[in-house]
Amino acid sequence: MDMTQALQRDAVRTRRALLDAAAKTIATHGAAVSLEVIAREAGVSKGGLLHHFRSKEALLVGLVEEWLARFDAAVRRHLDPNDHRPGGLFRAHIRATFDDSPEMVDELWRNPAVLTALLGVPDVLQRAQVHDRMWRQALADDGLHPQRAAVIMGMLDGCTMSDLLGNTSTKAEREDTRALLLALTDETGPVVSQG
Amino acid sequence: MDMTQALQRDAVRTRRALLDAAAKTIATHGAAVSLEVIAREAGVSKGGLLHHFRSKEALLVGLVEEWLARFDAAVRRHLDPNDHRPGGLFRAHIRATFDDSPEMVDELWRNPAVLTALLGVPDVLQRAQVHDRMWRQALADDGLHPQRAAVIMGMLDGCTMSDLLGNTSTKAEREDTRALLLALTDETGPVVSQG
Repeated sequence: MDMTQALQRDAVRTRRALLDAAAKTIATHGAAVSLEVIAREAGVSKGGLLHHFRSKEALLVGLVEEWLARFDAAVRRHLDPNDHRPGGLFRAHIRATFDDSPEMVDELWRNPAVLTALLGVPDVLQRAQVHDRMWRQALADDGLHPQRAAVIMGMLDGCTMSDLLGNTSTKAEREDTRALLLALTDETGPVVSQG
Repeated sequence: MDMTQALQRDAVRTRRALLDAAAKTIATHGAAVSLEVIAREAGVSKGGLLHHFRSKEALLVGLVEEWLARFDAAVRRHLDPNDHRPGGLFRAHIRATFDDSPEMVDELWRNPAVLTALLGVPDVLQRAQVHDRMWRQALADDGLHPQRAAVIMGMLDGCTMSDLLGNTSTKAEREDTRALLLALTDETGPVVSQG
């Protein structure tokens, strides 16, 4: 590993430590926690923190971006290289939503102070919206009729909504919904004839 | 109007004034606002406030219950007495979600301090979940195949999710989704054959 790589690795590590420190100190001290306290928790100088994140808002945006990137990585993990039928990206998205997303949402709820802090930052919402748009465009090119795609995307949003509000459905109900969504990707035409 | 009715009317009015005062003072002073300040804003003694709501949490639960009741009233308003086909409750629910819910969500976002305060109260979430369960049961008896009902309910949750996250879809996209949901209630069988 050369010098540049070592420096990059350190930068990634420091960034990681700062995001962890932000989540941890917001949980214990509340959303008004100072950048000094966050830097100290990460074992970094305040100047070091400001080099990576110029404000508390930037740290919160960093947390949400990390969260969205984890979801994207989960979808990629679920992509089946042997699946060449239309709807393959949908199937990976469905599997990530059911098999990975609930744990990520649980983590978020384990730290409600971070959740409420996130809601207070307009840039956080904007990142979530950009992420949502990006997925909608990718899924629109997955070979399913736009109407069928809209049904599946709507239902997937519904699953995220239920997870965020603290899911009350049973394991069997979740299994049914997962199977229904996957079955919806097995055909490509419209779900209903609209006239 | 007799004495009892007059007293009941006053109680409803005081309750209303207290909920409005809670929303207003949380917006200006933050979630930590005292019950004294809320009572003063409502023009009620602290004892009067405690008679209606025993704590700040109870006021926040009161706000969410009022919000859920407004949605229920919107669904009732959209019930068509001449519609005797299966799916009539779904159609009213769809119309309330598209025609009334967005304005209610906008109101919520106009006061983000109340929104974050609501998230911090477990009883608020529990009320929302009970409300959700109640609707799921009512809609399960609306004459549509359980699978079709699950698709429509999932998509409706998805619409609420998009509204809550600050909807980025265009007016035309919303119209398409509304029409698609209504079209889904025109048939009663399963949407997809699952094997």
